[in-house]
Amino acid sequence: MSHHPRHRWLRWPSEPDRPRLAFGADYNPEQWPREVWRDDVRAMRTAGVNIVSLAIFSWARIQPRAGVWDFDWLDEVMELLHGHDIAVDLATATASPPPWLTAAHPEILPVDRDGHTRWPGARQHWRPTSPVFREHALALVRALAERYGAHPAMAAWHINNELGCHNAYDYSDDAARAFRLWLRQRYGTVDGLNDAWATTFWSQRFSDWEQVLPPRLAAPGSFPNPTQQLDFKRFSSDALREHLRAERDLLRALTPDLPVTTNFLLMGDGNTVNYPEWAAELDFVANDHYRLPGPQGRDELSFSANLIGNIAGGLPWYLMEHSTSAVNWQPVNKAKLPGELARDSLTHVAHGADAVCFFQWRQSAGGAEKYHSAMIPHAGEDSAVFRSVTELGATLRDLAAVAGTPREPARAAILFDWDSWWAAEQDSHPSDRLRYRQEALDWYTAFLELGLRADVVPAGGAWERYELVVAPVLYVMPAALSQRLHAYVGAGGHLVTTYFSGIVDEHEHVWLGGYPGALRDLLGIRIEEFAPLHDDETAELDDGSTGTLWTDRIDVVDPAVEVLARYKTGEMAGRAAITRRAPGPGSASYVSTRLGPAGLIPLLAGLAARAGVTSELPAALRGQVELAVRGPHRFLINRTDREVDVSAVAGPGSALAPRAVLVVPQARS
Amino acid sequence: MSHHPRHRWLRWPSEPDRPRLAFGADYNPEQWPREVWRDDVRAMRTAGVNIVSLAIFSWARIQPRAGVWDFDWLDEVMELLHGHDIAVDLATATASPPPWLTAAHPEILPVDRDGHTRWPGARQHWRPTSPVFREHALALVRALAERYGAHPAMAAWHINNELGCHNAYDYSDDAARAFRLWLRQRYGTVDGLNDAWATTFWSQRFSDWEQVLPPRLAAPGSFPNPTQQLDFKRFSSDALREHLRAERDLLRALTPDLPVTTNFLLMGDGNTVNYPEWAAELDFVANDHYRLPGPQGRDELSFSANLIGNIAGGLPWYLMEHSTSAVNWQPVNKAKLPGELARDSLTHVAHGADAVCFFQWRQSAGGAEKYHSAMIPHAGEDSAVFRSVTELGATLRDLAAVAGTPREPARAAILFDWDSWWAAEQDSHPSDRLRYRQEALDWYTAFLELGLRADVVPAGGAWERYELVVAPVLYVMPAALSQRLHAYVGAGGHLVTTYFSGIVDEHEHVWLGGYPGALRDLLGIRIEEFAPLHDDETAELDDGSTGTLWTDRIDVVDPAVEVLARYKTGEMAGRAAITRRAPGPGSASYVSTRLGPAGLIPLLAGLAARAGVTSELPAALRGQVELAVRGPHRFLINRTDREVDVSAVAGPGSALAPRAVLVVPQARS
Amino acid sequence: MSHHPRHRWLRWPSEPDRPRLAFGADYNPEQWPREVWRDDVRAMRTAGVNIVSLAIFSWARIQPRAGVWDFDWLDEVMELLHGHDIAVDLATATASPPPWLTAAHPEILPVDRDGHTRWPGARQHWRPTSPVFREHALALVRALAERYGAHPAMAAWHINNELGCHNAYDYSDDAARAFRLWLRQRYGTVDGLNDAWATTFWSQRFSDWEQVLPPRLAAPGSFPNPTQQLDFKRFSSDALREHLRAERDLLRALTPDLPVTTNFLLMGDGNTVNYPEWAAELDFVANDHYRLPGPQGRDELSFSANLIGNIAGGLPWYLMEHSTSAVNWQPVNKAKLPGELARDSLTHVAHGADAVCFFQWRQSAGGAEKYHSAMIPHAGEDSAVFRSVTELGATLRDLAAVAGTPREPARAAILFDWDSWWAAEQDSHPSDRLRYRQEALDWYTAFLELGLRADVVPAGGAWERYELVVAPVLYVMPAALSQRLHAYVGAGGHLVTTYFSGIVDEHEHVWLGGYPGALRDLLGIRIEEFAPLHDDETAELDDGSTGTLWTDRIDVVDPAVEVLARYKTGEMAGRAAITRRAPGPGSASYVSTRLGPAGLIPLLAGLAARAGVTSELPAALRGQVELAVRGPHRFLINRTDREVDVSAVAGPGSALAPRAVLVVPQARS
Repeated sequence: MSHHPRHRWLRWPSEPDRPRLAFGADYNPEQWPREVWRDDVRAMRTAGVNIVSLAIFSWARIQPRAGVWDFDWLDEVMELLHGHDIAVDLATATASPPPWLTAAHPEILPVDRDGHTRWPGARQHWRPTSPVFREHALALVRALAERYGAHPAMAAWHINNELGCHNAYDYSDDAARAFRLWLRQRYGTVDGLNDAWATTFWSQRFSDWEQVLPPRLAAPGSFPNPTQQLDFKRFSSDALREHLRAERDLLRALTPDLPVTTNFLLMGDGNTVNYPEWAAELDFVANDHYRLPGPQGRDELSFSANLIGNIAGGLPWYLMEHSTSAVNWQPVNKAKLPGELARDSLTHVAHGADAVCFFQWRQSAGGAEKYHSAMIPHAGEDSAVFRSVTELGATLRDLAAVAGTPREPARAAILFDWDSWWAAEQDSHPSDRLRYRQEALDWYTAFLELGLRADVVPAGGAWERYELVVAPVLYVMPAALSQRLHAYVGAGGHLVTTYFSGIVDEHEHVWLGGYPGALRDLLGIRIEEFAPLHDDETAELDDGSTGTLWTDRIDVVDPAVEVLARYKTGEMAGRAAITRRAPGPGSASYVSTRLGPAGLIPLLAGLAARAGVTSELPAALRGQVELAVRGPHRFLINRTDREVDVSAVAGPGSALAPRAVLVVPQARS
Repeated sequence: MSHHPRHRWLRWPSEPDRPRLAFGADYNPEQWPREVWRDDVRAMRTAGVNIVSLAIFSWARIQPRAGVWDFDWLDEVMELLHGHDIAVDLATATASPPPWLTAAHPEILPVDRDGHTRWPGARQHWRPTSPVFREHALALVRALAERYGAHPAMAAWHINNELGCHNAYDYSDDAARAFRLWLRQRYGTVDGLNDAWATTFWSQRFSDWEQVLPPRLAAPGSFPNPTQQLDFKRFSSDALREHLRAERDLLRALTPDLPVTTNFLLMGDGNTVNYPEWAAELDFVANDHYRLPGPQGRDELSFSANLIGNIAGGLPWYLMEHSTSAVNWQPVNKAKLPGELARDSLTHVAHGADAVCFFQWRQSAGGAEKYHSAMIPHAGEDSAVFRSVTELGATLRDLAAVAGTPREPARAAILFDWDSWWAAEQDSHPSDRLRYRQEALDWYTAFLELGLRADVVPAGGAWERYELVVAPVLYVMPAALSQRLHAYVGAGGHLVTTYFSGIVDEHEHVWLGGYPGALRDLLGIRIEEFAPLHDDETAELDDGSTGTLWTDRIDVVDPAVEVLARYKTGEMAGRAAITRRAPGPGSASYVSTRLGPAGLIPLLAGLAARAGVTSELPAALRGQVELAVRGPHRFLINRTDREVDVSAVAGPGSALAPRAVLVVPQARS
Repeated sequence: MSHHPRHRWLRWPSEPDRPRLAFGADYNPEQWPREVWRDDVRAMRTAGVNIVSLAIFSWARIQPRAGVWDFDWLDEVMELLHGHDIAVDLATATASPPPWLTAAHPEILPVDRDGHTRWPGARQHWRPTSPVFREHALALVRALAERYGAHPAMAAWHINNELGCHNAYDYSDDAARAFRLWLRQRYGTVDGLNDAWATTFWSQRFSDWEQVLPPRLAAPGSFPNPTQQLDFKRFSSDALREHLRAERDLLRALTPDLPVTTNFLLMGDGNTVNYPEWAAELDFVANDHYRLPGPQGRDELSFSANLIGNIAGGLPWYLMEHSTSAVNWQPVNKAKLPGELARDSLTHVAHGADAVCFFQWRQSAGGAEKYHSAMIPHAGEDSAVFRSVTELGATLRDLAAVAGTPREPARAAILFDWDSWWAAEQDSHPSDRLRYRQEALDWYTAFLELGLRADVVPAGGAWERYELVVAPVLYVMPAALSQRLHAYVGAGGHLVTTYFSGIVDEHEHVWLGGYPGALRDLLGIRIEEFAPLHDDETAELDDGSTGTLWTDRIDVVDPAVEVLARYKTGEMAGRAAITRRAPGPGSASYVSTRLGPAGLIPLLAGLAARAGVTSELPAALRGQVELAVRGPHRFLINRTDREVDVSAVAGPGSALAPRAVLVVPQARS
């Protein structure tokens, strides 16, 4: 969890104290002839761009071969930008090693689980643990810092790019060596490791550190050691962080006045990096986000922005990349509908973003992402996309007062935890259908449908201040976390948790005596066996809702437990499905099946009401708009494709266009 | 096929001659602190446990590094068990090599078809043909035999574990060398091999043994030599048997008084080991079985138990592993319903099991199988599972008289053959949808639905004594097998066979002149071309049934052939679909399509009636209960989830609870 | 595109000038004992066989080890065939290296994208770029040419077999070396390569040729450089052509009087070889074709035959392989229906084939293709298949006058282009659902349904003579091709093109300024963004048709553009979906969605009518029969499974049986 000992925002080259939202893009001038550059800066001014990220994939251009440097073009671009008052977030350019480096040192190429080398041709073909790569990368960082550290255009450093997006899991011998060192640090002794990994099972007991390996391809039809798998995910996130720290430490030593960041990629199912543990490494948090298709696509964007906002400690963060329209990497890549460009951008702002940037400025004519939309599309400036971009630039200029205002915490929270995400979806479990993030997202959608604000907060964060805390599938529960939850309820907090929560400790060892071992007493129930459902099975509840995926055979142990719903059919008929125990002013509720948004809405309505958490929105707006609050600013985001009547908050006759966003002063009701 | 020259059952440490059924589990005390061990033996006594399998995955615990042995803990466990009159089936502990061994000798790791090394992390990461692994494994066997061979708790040796479950197919250079030796032994000369493999096709003719390889990954879109593929399956089964023999021979030399077994894994689609060829290697047969989900799950359990019973020659066998409830390795792992634990166990007993054991005694807190149920679940002794276990222990004690009684053969049999299983599902065939075992299982279900007992017997076994023999998809038909079938019908036997039977010889060379070449005259029909069906196609028959998967364009050659059903539609309309030829008192019938259980029931009813095979059950019970007979004991197994009225066999008003089993004395009707 | 500077047809051993159609098969006598050979030639005479392809997979039989040759058996077979007046198309036997060669030189084995060696066991396990393989292959070619070049049975040489069917994509170091040489030749300088591949993207800029690699397995979740991918496909086709040329050059040097061919495999989705670029290498074109299952299977056969006929420049070509009935390599392999054997054969003849041959003469008893049908099936000569074969032999004898007559060009054409096929289906595109060939085939089916003849012609061919040219998904459009299309319309031609046409140049760089950049002015429209559809989405048009897969957000730029249909629903409602611009007598039409055959039929009816292209068939026959014309011969092919009344063309009361073909003299209407 981030504590942000030294949060430092962008160092604006001009009028550093004037409040403003940053607006811009990745800028890749090396893809275009020089004559286009002047067009670029002119159009940037038109659009209201005030910052660009530069040189992200320029290593091969800057250092065309070992020992040879070519900065002239970059000098010229920096000057040109600065001359037009466009600040620079300069990349360290280490994201993808150039061909000369991988040709000379193929031992920096990652190796996958099956033993395949991952060759150049795409990007991020480097082992996070390679000492050879590290040496060359730091030499590049040093060269850039020495040349541009004092350049007046510089607003920040941008380390590498989307660390871990394509090379998080490397099973090479370099990785094996680093994994052993990491494990030594974690467990001290080989026997500590043996205990944590339960190696007495299947004859896996180590007698020497040198015997330990990453979870490489194992015997078919069998399951590699689960704690080995879990620790390898932890290690892989940490190994990438080591690289981040190495670049950052060098930058801080050489250019102590410049803030340093890297762009996270918190979106969708990507979970290779434990971002809450990374936030404190940086001067400010940055994120890349691409909206996904499907009915919950917009809610997922809000969910991710919300979580990033909390990872950033409520302080402003930088939306480093999103798209103006279609992306190129989905199976089917749809252009955005009218209004979506602005709505997506402003939703991020609503959750704390003080910078709204895109990949990329000008759509590439060649290369693997030429069908990824940009601020200037293939069609050129005479295009709906560029007009929308320019409008957005103006909107952001009008919202300058938002800059720097902190997120206003909600009264309810959803806990989100990387350990549980990693572990709950591992193999050899009661069900391989469980999707950790989806359950959390469903609760988030239910909050939105009810017009209730909820923060998505890391489980390691400071969530005790919330009146209602939903902790779905909080599978991994170290003793300390269990104690915090007990204390929270004891202090009057209202906890809601679900199936497959509180089951294991940090080593994925089961808390014994009946599930959920770590919460059994707090919930007043006991489960002897899990009862997951096949894809074609459902469980009917007597409150009219329908469960899928999972059920539990619950025994109510504490007679004071209130049964909120029971199973209606099958072997479980009559048994408790949803329970609530209120040992004092606080309460602990348990939901034993997957209800989906439709089933969660009425349930959450009741639970929130009993926790005293009510909507800040007029009834007519609940579910129609999302509300987010930054300081005195209320963001009303139309979640629908229909016009929404917002007279209740914005004066008689006010309407919010489909997918539109309205920013109004904080009501004092 | 097993001839059991020296069947020897467990050597009970106390009262060796008292009849009893064995009851117990795999016991893995090394996963728990010493203080749990005393609890274990106390609870074992409570549950009625009289035997455990020990040390199955203990290699790394027993031999923590090369040359270092640690037997103290095992000595203590052996003493503790013996002190509580619990016998020990001691494993040779060779199932999974310890980390020090694979670290020092990575050349024992298997290599898969694609050339990937299969690394440690799970289990069974050893090449069956590795001389290095063999040497270390036998050293361990010797150490265990020398230390515990004379221990009074010893009831039997348990070699390795589920041989071939995860390492059956190894394509390493060790495997290549062993494969060549196996082929030399089989074919004598390179030209013998060339003829058998039809290597004139695609320029594959060998001029030297050294050129021969396992069927490693070949050119994409093409098909490796089919006889090479088939022989590699045969070789791989034999290579594992070589390992079995090596351990067994050493044990027999060192401890001639102790019986030796290994646990088969005959269940579902697993077909890496040709178990009928293994039975005679052992003093008694043991099997592991886990019931699969789906509508035929219970029937498949019975089918497998039945086949194991016949592989064991009708003599008692040992159910080494099954589950008390959920397993951990299916996509969705359901707990067992009330009654299923006992019903599954007793169904095995009904088919000849004299030992009912589970994996495992106490559910693990960590490791890859921690969500696999056990006799003591995570919830502890105060649990429905442990209460059911204890009840089962009592039931088995009451059934002590069953011990040692042989299976009573049925009057009908289903032939089951590994060569046909392996070969019929190979690539480049008329259809890749054919599933050998499923067709056999469907006939088995039809027998059960009609209340007819049928034995599942290896095609190499002594099936001539049966009045009705169903041989579905008996694709591989060496001349000798064809001659046996001809003689059987000639002697008055009633043979039923199906599509894709009698097509090829042992080298998978087609019997020419029209299909089915090896049975054409016996059946009185001739087929020029196969007519398999696409997934969305069906074939309507004029008896109201519907075929899928396959049809044949049958010409009736012998005018005496009786056509039992004809195709009704399409290009085949009017042609024979099911035929019967009765050249004398015997008959040979042919079913040219896949009818599934629903279609087979009426067909089989007629065929059985004409063969004079009738149900031993009162009409009201047929289909509702499965009947199995051991000596004077009749097992009535409720196949349904409803209560079944069994007054007709157990006295007025008697009812069999859902999923319950009743054992009654043999009726003399 | 082929110019056939030296088209030479078969050199018939007897009566070389007598017109005849060739009829025969691959003949593999080495699979059978000598006593079968005499039966073979007798039955060949019965069937009317006059040519066989010999020794295709005989390398291991001819050269059983290095330096050892065995020609005796082949001498005997050649004599036997010649003695029965059966000509020989002798293979160079290089298709699959023998075991002794790969055992001695494993470095000739291909390596796949993932780095896996592709081992022997199937066929074509050789690297096209291996100098070691080349040397051994040419030694074999020389030996065969020296021994049989003057043999009187010789009618032609048959180089290798289906080049590239299983080894087209090799990623080995040999391939890397050859790829670099190919790129040097194409681009001259490293910077030329850098520009073409747009390597400034993702830091891929090369500073030395040695850094360039094939597109081996790259970082997961990322996309290898698209131009690298496209060039690797081009290179791989060319590398195979280099092998072809090497064998051919040697044959031409040693036996200048014998024509040389190789069998293409133009069918279905196979697109590894750019056949239009290969045709001119050969004395005559040969093709293998296997009809695929599904509703467009027959049309696809016609489509492929048509295209091969045009690749052959309208001159006679050789159908080297097709099947008499079932094949062995589909998931479900169906026998042919009555009539299909002849219909398939004669459809090829209708499109220019002067040779009708099968794989193979006698169905194998063993090996990977034993379930592939043949002229003599497993059932023997007493079989429906052999009777159909004999009937076909007689039919072909009666059609001798067809031999040598050229295909009569149609008035309409469909352009077909390998560059667009390869590039349009690459990754990181707007949709990964697009299937290039399927769109072309749908247009072909629409032509057939309307009774309109259309030629399928390579985009590089001479298509200016056609009055109507349909160019579906002509994605890759070098400037020269765009100019040709402009000139064509300018000269009065009628062009129809579709979504995702004219988008990129030969390096897959986008033509900027709005799509379709290369055709924007010609079509009078402009598209800012693509709008592909998800699988569950459709687009309704106001002409009643329904689009799938794709839509475009069209702006009509030229007010003279006629909108033929508009979108009815969704965000695109009211926008143009199908447009037509006629700047003079010619026109350029655009179809922005995938309509499928049902939607294309009415659209094409209108477009053809306005282009003045009308059916040559009486109304009653349109859609029922396919018409193809060779010189004075009109082929009427019944496309249906019903009898068709053909009185209008063949006299009162004439009927065409289901799947039958009628050849009538050219009508002069």
